[in-house]
Amino acid sequence: MLVPIDFAAEFERLADFWSPHVVARVNDSYVKVAKLQGEFVWHAHADEDELFLVMRGQLVIQLEDGEVVLGPGQSVVVPRGVRHNPMAAEECWVVLVEPVATKHTGDVVTDRTRSIAEQLA
Amino acid sequence: MLVPIDFAAEFERLADFWSPHVVARVNDSYVKVAKLQGEFVWHAHADEDELFLVMRGQLVIQLEDGEVVLGPGQSVVVPRGVRHNPMAAEECWVVLVEPVATKHTGDVVTDRTRSIAEQLA
Repeated sequence: MLVPIDFAAEFERLADFWSPHVVARVNDSYVKVAKLQGEFVWHAHADEDELFLVMRGQLVIQLEDGEVVLGPGQSVVVPRGVRHNPMAAEECWVVLVEPVATKHTGDVVTDRTRSIAEQLA
Repeated sequence: MLVPIDFAAEFERLADFWSPHVVARVNDSYVKVAKLQGEFVWHAHADEDELFLVMRGQLVIQLEDGEVVLGPGQSVVVPRGVRHNPMAAEECWVVLVEPVATKHTGDVVTDRTRSIAEQLA
């Protein structure tokens, strides 16, 4: 029997900002939840598109040619190779859809980098 | 510059039940919106998992060993090969994530079957 995912409950369980947690796998992608606050880090994913869906709060995705501002129920796909930097002035809840291979800080390693094992824990 | 997707606006534009509309591509998957009401058709996707996320209303997914009931903010992944039949007593809005190759009625063709070209239109 299949077990539903309750996104609100998954967000409630998240203790740390910028620490994505995998809630489902669909084909070769993971669906993740993350709480964001503050500024992340400029990075790109060479071979992977990344979908952001805001569930609560407001997310600004800085791009080299401007920025995209997303509120609840709004989404954007950052195409592969596009450098971006997520920012949230206040606490923001986002759902991410990205390939299982995606490193959330892309080609950059910082103290915020979480391994896939950590994201699955 | 990237263009955000506003899910509420996408749902408002949908005129017909059971007629998914593609709103984004992320890697090898499409993100679709669909309005559901009534009962669909039993089917399976041999090689593709399918994610359902309910945005409004209540969705019942009948399975051969029971059923899953989803409300707003709840989601389930129907694994490849699992026969299922979506039902909604009242109007229900769902987001779907599934491979670009997925036929929404799976291995079954009915008068509700919509081609990928129709879903992209």
